[in-house]
Amino acid sequence: MKTSRRSFLATSAVAATAFSVFPGLTVTGKTIPHLPASRMKLSFEPFNLALKHQFTLSGSSRSTTPVMLIKIDYEGITGYGEASMPPYLGESHQTASEFLAQVDLTQFNSPFLIEEVRDYLEQLAPGNPAAKASIDIALHDLTGKLMGQPWHKIWGLDPGKTPNTSFTIGIDTPEVVKAKTREASAYKILKVKLGRDNDREMIQAVRFISQVPIGVDVNQGWTDRDKALELIFWLKEQGVILIEQPMPKDRIEDNAWLTERSPLPIYGDEAIQHLPDVVRFQGVYHGINIKLMKCGGMSEAFLMAQTAKSLGMKVMFGCMTETSCAISAAAQLSPMAETADLDGNLLITNDPFTGVEIKNGKIALNDFPGIGVKKIV
Amino acid sequence: MKTSRRSFLATSAVAATAFSVFPGLTVTGKTIPHLPASRMKLSFEPFNLALKHQFTLSGSSRSTTPVMLIKIDYEGITGYGEASMPPYLGESHQTASEFLAQVDLTQFNSPFLIEEVRDYLEQLAPGNPAAKASIDIALHDLTGKLMGQPWHKIWGLDPGKTPNTSFTIGIDTPEVVKAKTREASAYKILKVKLGRDNDREMIQAVRFISQVPIGVDVNQGWTDRDKALELIFWLKEQGVILIEQPMPKDRIEDNAWLTERSPLPIYGDEAIQHLPDVVRFQGVYHGINIKLMKCGGMSEAFLMAQTAKSLGMKVMFGCMTETSCAISAAAQLSPMAETADLDGNLLITNDPFTGVEIKNGKIALNDFPGIGVKKIV
Repeated sequence: MKTSRRSFLATSAVAATAFSVFPGLTVTGKTIPHLPASRMKLSFEPFNLALKHQFTLSGSSRSTTPVMLIKIDYEGITGYGEASMPPYLGESHQTASEFLAQVDLTQFNSPFLIEEVRDYLEQLAPGNPAAKASIDIALHDLTGKLMGQPWHKIWGLDPGKTPNTSFTIGIDTPEVVKAKTREASAYKILKVKLGRDNDREMIQAVRFISQVPIGVDVNQGWTDRDKALELIFWLKEQGVILIEQPMPKDRIEDNAWLTERSPLPIYGDEAIQHLPDVVRFQGVYHGINIKLMKCGGMSEAFLMAQTAKSLGMKVMFGCMTETSCAISAAAQLSPMAETADLDGNLLITNDPFTGVEIKNGKIALNDFPGIGVKKIV
Repeated sequence: MKTSRRSFLATSAVAATAFSVFPGLTVTGKTIPHLPASRMKLSFEPFNLALKHQFTLSGSSRSTTPVMLIKIDYEGITGYGEASMPPYLGESHQTASEFLAQVDLTQFNSPFLIEEVRDYLEQLAPGNPAAKASIDIALHDLTGKLMGQPWHKIWGLDPGKTPNTSFTIGIDTPEVVKAKTREASAYKILKVKLGRDNDREMIQAVRFISQVPIGVDVNQGWTDRDKALELIFWLKEQGVILIEQPMPKDRIEDNAWLTERSPLPIYGDEAIQHLPDVVRFQGVYHGINIKLMKCGGMSEAFLMAQTAKSLGMKVMFGCMTETSCAISAAAQLSPMAETADLDGNLLITNDPFTGVEIKNGKIALNDFPGIGVKKIV
């Protein structure tokens, strides 16, 4: 475990803490005398998530996911963040450690300067979206706590409008798929991974057990657009309600061709990383799947969702395998979405946080300030 | 004066006020017991701004501007808002009164539900952007006060990065232009209105007095693109640094043709109202002029600015003739902009608010929560 502890406690006096605990005092318009500037302290810890089931995509299998758990301390308050780094996306404990070790937050005199920090992180190094997201999440947690409000509230969203979350069924044999589907009986929607050579078999195995709506995630696995369209019409008859990233992300024409003809909404996932991608892929996809670990954090995710909605595109929030930390951060945004696939924390056995819950299949936000999590280990 | 007062004070007990004054207490993660739900109370008052100078655009002149001053009371806290309605834009004391009288905020159990209120206002009636902006501004003021923070801070912006504001010189005779330019000696940039038949004369009159950079606002006044381009090259030699809305907004090809060839950045103003316009006019203009009274409020303005920046477009914040209320609201966003033209409150003699100040030509944000204003009359 690598941490970047600095001589912090000495400067974080009781007076400074009291100041931040009562921000409401400024409501009266009184100016509060300036206290000596406090500094943010970033620390991080590599962690391995243990998966309940081996996880199979159209390209790989694994039984653990490396994450980096981070915290930012400021005036006695701790903001939690997380980077989840499935190996196929290129980040790792090593890349995240190297990146985070370079990050110097002491140059910012307030955790509220999130836009400045975002610019700084971009200048520090390209890429590293999950490591960047971990800082963005921790700053949101911290500033939400300093304001005494959860971020869904600060963003003006209605916590009553959260969507159901889907529960993910990975690619496997019919018997395993049936077993997983039985386990998922609490969920109102299932996400089924397709894109190998057993697509119809997968759906039939799920339908043998359950009749709930299905979202299909192809992860770029289809290569023939005519066959893909034919399969989509068949999937619609099976009660499938949406298709994610049907064809490789660089085959823009083929994805647009499918979107134009598909009887089901087509969502871009791998193709959509940052805000400009939303604009660029208008017309290519009906909707977008936003993930904090792709886009670099909550600020960017909020802008992507609002821009997509404004352009008439559908919005979904997705995740990697993550603890309740990153999942609860994404859940703050979920009232903006038609659909969510925020089940990453439900697929692991060693979650060090509690946070957002799923009640009757629906995302249930709590009232805790920040991202709404508590550390339990 | 029309108000929509309701029996509000009875439900706004001391306990409820105390609750909102100390939102910071939730920092500890403690759940605070629910108090009886309070309701928002909206009231509004027509007001006429007295202009220091008669105001001339390429299409009209006037010496007053009608505005609507509004407030939303909630748990003993007041949020202030304003609709400014220059007659040529179609809103008036009558249209705003009719619209605001229909607005029922008692259906929302929290002023934080800004996105819900925005959807509700859109469904209530189309248009009415200034009246809608007044509610959006008041809700931001109110929620910022409830969180004890100014909105520039909540948005993660750096108050040290505010731009200079320009001071506007309307179309007039050379002698009046010279006199106005002398009065504007405190400003680091001037905005000069062009688009009549005396464009060169206007610039020469300003240059007779001052050598500061000039932003030129044509207000769609040029109709021949070749002559416009020739004039822009001449203006560049005169120290002009940007051109706003050179040609009519519906002549998209002509504006794009100019943007492609212009040695100065071209900003869309009348063409750019809402977020989708930013996307639509990528390539047609180098930048956008965002005004709260056009786009309907601070939430939309924030999204427009962030999206424009993300697409590589320049951002300016502009205004109508407004009190320090709406100007201070727009100023919260100004760290995102290269340029600002937030001088509307400097052009009137009866400002009922104090708020943002101009120090050495630069926008100086204060630390007051919400939009940073105080009512003085």
